[in-house]
Amino acid sequence: MMEITKQHIEDAHERIKPFVHKTPVLTSRTLNRMSGAEIFFKCENLQKIGAFKIRGGMNSVLSLSEEKRKKGIATHSSGNHAQAIAFAAREVDTKAFIVMPDNSPRVKVEAVKGYGAEIFFCQPNQQAREELLQDVVDKTGAEFIHPYNNYDVITGQATCAKELIKEVPSLDFILVPVGGGGLLSGTLLSSHYFSPATVVYAGEPEGAADAVLSIKNNKIEKAAFVKTIADGLLTTLGDKTFPIIKQYVKDILTVNDEAIIAAMQLVYEKMKLVIEPSAAVPLAALLKNANLFTGKRVGLIFSGGNVELKKLGEWF
Amino acid sequence: MMEITKQHIEDAHERIKPFVHKTPVLTSRTLNRMSGAEIFFKCENLQKIGAFKIRGGMNSVLSLSEEKRKKGIATHSSGNHAQAIAFAAREVDTKAFIVMPDNSPRVKVEAVKGYGAEIFFCQPNQQAREELLQDVVDKTGAEFIHPYNNYDVITGQATCAKELIKEVPSLDFILVPVGGGGLLSGTLLSSHYFSPATVVYAGEPEGAADAVLSIKNNKIEKAAFVKTIADGLLTTLGDKTFPIIKQYVKDILTVNDEAIIAAMQLVYEKMKLVIEPSAAVPLAALLKNANLFTGKRVGLIFSGGNVELKKLGEWF
Repeated sequence: MMEITKQHIEDAHERIKPFVHKTPVLTSRTLNRMSGAEIFFKCENLQKIGAFKIRGGMNSVLSLSEEKRKKGIATHSSGNHAQAIAFAAREVDTKAFIVMPDNSPRVKVEAVKGYGAEIFFCQPNQQAREELLQDVVDKTGAEFIHPYNNYDVITGQATCAKELIKEVPSLDFILVPVGGGGLLSGTLLSSHYFSPATVVYAGEPEGAADAVLSIKNNKIEKAAFVKTIADGLLTTLGDKTFPIIKQYVKDILTVNDEAIIAAMQLVYEKMKLVIEPSAAVPLAALLKNANLFTGKRVGLIFSGGNVELKKLGEWF
Repeated sequence: MMEITKQHIEDAHERIKPFVHKTPVLTSRTLNRMSGAEIFFKCENLQKIGAFKIRGGMNSVLSLSEEKRKKGIATHSSGNHAQAIAFAAREVDTKAFIVMPDNSPRVKVEAVKGYGAEIFFCQPNQQAREELLQDVVDKTGAEFIHPYNNYDVITGQATCAKELIKEVPSLDFILVPVGGGGLLSGTLLSSHYFSPATVVYAGEPEGAADAVLSIKNNKIEKAAFVKTIADGLLTTLGDKTFPIIKQYVKDILTVNDEAIIAAMQLVYEKMKLVIEPSAAVPLAALLKNANLFTGKRVGLIFSGGNVELKKLGEWF
């Protein structure tokens, strides 16, 4: 395993700073009262492209050699990583080639197009996605940047917890969502290097519970079933994220969609913030396990705010 | 007409400061690009009780004599003023008696109850509301605080624009919504005293267009019809707000519900903020009349964020 050092994270932070927001950390007396904890919400929903993914996307693109970079960047994603790569490519004046499932929400396709990326539509399954991506890479010579199983991406995501730790000292806990594990492994490394006394938990949907199973069985597992509204957390861990998670995470707390919706609704009502379902998972996990966090200082990352507004009427 | 002086507004600001938030002023590059203006959003959706109304409510309650205050406060409102009075009464340790239409949204009734107010339900019409209020006042001896037609309320609302002007100097324009005119008249006074070169426009729904008609006919008029999603702006001007508005407002710009929804959706998508329909009216007016504001510095008050989340699915 390539070792991601403290210096790597510090370098990544300097590298991406001109391109990303230092997002605000907000608090809510109502949510503190309801949970019994003192919660510090790191608002990556207010980040460029509306999600933390721009950190990893930007760091990986900026870390490429000039020669590689100018051939363009390729990825497959229907979600925030697609926007991150499209945005990052535009910032460094190169091309982005994005493979998206042909059932992707129009709003996400438009966003990626809006950043000037070229989109290739595939059938909505893993095989079609990977085959088309390989095809695109073969034809263009573009560099493939994986959504999470990539050290530069992980290092970029680590900068989020680094900022949080610097702004809010002496955190007892940090809670983040886990999907493929890019944000989680980055958070674990930043906590390890910059605030070793801070304990990191992950929140995971019951309807995509591969990480909790992987930790239990000590190998990368698929979820028993995949059905959750937290559409950013459907993927399984990768061979670069799993070892970091296995080594450092305290535990993975699972929550069902009902709890995710309830947590999300609290954020809309009490904090007046738009977050996506995946971003509500750690708060749902905190509220479900409130006894773990009573009287403690808890950092919690709102991972993104890119939600199909049409769906809110169904959920709330 | 009682003269509200600069000193009155400054005193009110000092009076309410311990009880209300100094709300943040946010910006959005995307909305600046779309509108051609440089917009500074004063986020009263992030205010206590989720709306600017707490400023007027708090100021009026704090301005009562000790003797009057201890008899309690009464008002009629199905909206943010009800919460403001309930909250303010609790802060000064007295009772609040709130007359609410029996078709008020459950969430608003719960919020008012949550602040410890006593609720009296009436039929949803103006006459039933006023009769029951009179009844409550007669029985309790409580002081009636009108939602907007009250100098202490107007002076309290004026503190919002005062903060905005102090934080963002040299504004060419300020835009606010107009319903009964409490926020608008307060904003006009603060602009007059603290930034006389700033020109104030109001946004009004076409489906509650009484203010634009009142200005035109130089007397308080009712709207030709009342049908709009901007449920905070249904009321007509009062004899205390109208003279101030007539004297100082530049113009009242009307927008239809389609434009209000489009503006609201932009705020959710681009700024990740929850606002209520009434709060989107000034942005809708700005976008509809973009030529008036091209290249200008525009302050815009997001008046509140108390929205029935269930409705978002219908609107978006």
